[in-house]
Amino acid sequence: DAAFLGINRHAVIEVTAELAAMGCGGAVCFASGFAETGDDDLQQQLVEAAGDMPLLGPNCYGVLNYLDGAMLWPDQHGGRAVDRGVAIISQSSNIAINISMQARGVPIAYTACVGNQAQTSLADMARSLLADPRVTAAGLYIEGIVDAGDFAAMVAEAAAAGKSIVAIKSGKTEAARHAASSHTAALAGDGAASSAFLARCGVIEATSPEEMMEVLKILHLFGRLPGNRLTAMCCSGGEAGLTADLAGSRQLVWPQIPDANRRQLAETLGPLVALANPLDYHTFIWG
Amino acid sequence: DAAFLGINRHAVIEVTAELAAMGCGGAVCFASGFAETGDDDLQQQLVEAAGDMPLLGPNCYGVLNYLDGAMLWPDQHGGRAVDRGVAIISQSSNIAINISMQARGVPIAYTACVGNQAQTSLADMARSLLADPRVTAAGLYIEGIVDAGDFAAMVAEAAAAGKSIVAIKSGKTEAARHAASSHTAALAGDGAASSAFLARCGVIEATSPEEMMEVLKILHLFGRLPGNRLTAMCCSGGEAGLTADLAGSRQLVWPQIPDANRRQLAETLGPLVALANPLDYHTFIWG
Repeated sequence: DAAFLGINRHAVIEVTAELAAMGCGGAVCFASGFAETGDDDLQQQLVEAAGDMPLLGPNCYGVLNYLDGAMLWPDQHGGRAVDRGVAIISQSSNIAINISMQARGVPIAYTACVGNQAQTSLADMARSLLADPRVTAAGLYIEGIVDAGDFAAMVAEAAAAGKSIVAIKSGKTEAARHAASSHTAALAGDGAASSAFLARCGVIEATSPEEMMEVLKILHLFGRLPGNRLTAMCCSGGEAGLTADLAGSRQLVWPQIPDANRRQLAETLGPLVALANPLDYHTFIWG
Repeated sequence: DAAFLGINRHAVIEVTAELAAMGCGGAVCFASGFAETGDDDLQQQLVEAAGDMPLLGPNCYGVLNYLDGAMLWPDQHGGRAVDRGVAIISQSSNIAINISMQARGVPIAYTACVGNQAQTSLADMARSLLADPRVTAAGLYIEGIVDAGDFAAMVAEAAAAGKSIVAIKSGKTEAARHAASSHTAALAGDGAASSAFLARCGVIEATSPEEMMEVLKILHLFGRLPGNRLTAMCCSGGEAGLTADLAGSRQLVWPQIPDANRRQLAETLGPLVALANPLDYHTFIWG
């Protein structure tokens, strides 16, 4: 059905052509040393050898399918079988591995790496995985976008299906653009421009894998939140204050507690608790 | 030697006076319902009852001494015995508990809560704990500073002993100031002013417990870093790019790799690795 090519980058060309001729369903090219190290010719040969056969990579680890238990992957991973969940699509296989080790309770349905995107682009892969009804949202690690129009169309299709996308876009700094270029041959472009592009598409931008996973957790459970009004209940004024300050620099609003709720809370919590939002409900009611 | 007072806030006054008369070494007042709920009189009675006896609180959990195995604490904690480490001094006992559960590898020597700071202030406590040669640095959770001059003097004394302080200062937002007021009766003041004050004292300001603990890890191991020049080695261009972008918004510099090191690296890593800082050293050398 599909092949994982864990062989030398020169040998991989002929084997790819043979697989395509056999009608293989698709192949992952693990080898690196193509466009990202300056060998555009070799990468072009690989694409031509694949022809109509879907090809992931080169310079990538392949696919982890936690829904059906199908793995084309050369290394460890930290995921487990799920019935539904989010899709992670990454140009960096190492970031994908590390995300698979998350202990944040986010169900991961698929992890797919696209490496140099020689044939199958990150947008192609995201489109395919988001078409699965068991996939609730997608998280992307992007170094370079091959076709901006196609990427925007993919995001719009996902939005029409009620699915949101969060992305880390590498290359905000010169040092990161250099790393992207020698990593997946991506032209990472200017940080402000790519942020503006992602925002216009409707992609939520995250700055770290931790932030991306926490956003995915919300998207998986609830989809996009309908508003920016926030409440929090803490048994300590310390956490209430910390929560308020952490929200402070964002476009979030703490509405006042409505009078009816205020009366109920006063009855329950007693006279020593100051009613406010965020609410420090104290520990008096613990008896 | 010392007493933990886990009794009603009205009963605690008389017992505190008795302990002081007996020459008790110090007491922790766990009860709340003093100045933070508007009862300044009761808090004043408590301070007078203590007299010269050191008193922590009211409205606080006390002290965890992981160096000598001495605990005056009414709840769970997640620490373990250490020979040296950092001191955590917090107005919020709940934040102190949560920090004690950290899995970040920071050795915690002491955790001390000061609650309403009725008698012993956060600066008093920090000064005492930083005087212990086994304490390497301090992390503070501050709602209000009782005496700015004394606080600044405490930080200067610590700096003279080569010990640095990192702090979370609650109250950057109106919602957080309200929480601080009803939590420990602290007048949290304006966020910009308190940040400027902390910076002028030489205190490193953190915005979250996670950030505070990571800063404490560096302070414990190395003290203050002498410069802002940074290098990173990653086996993936993804992580190299992510590191570069995360550093990008801070005052950090990625120096070029010196020529001599560049030659050595080229010999070791081979011709397919682009030498840059941060360095994506690839996995070719893994054979």
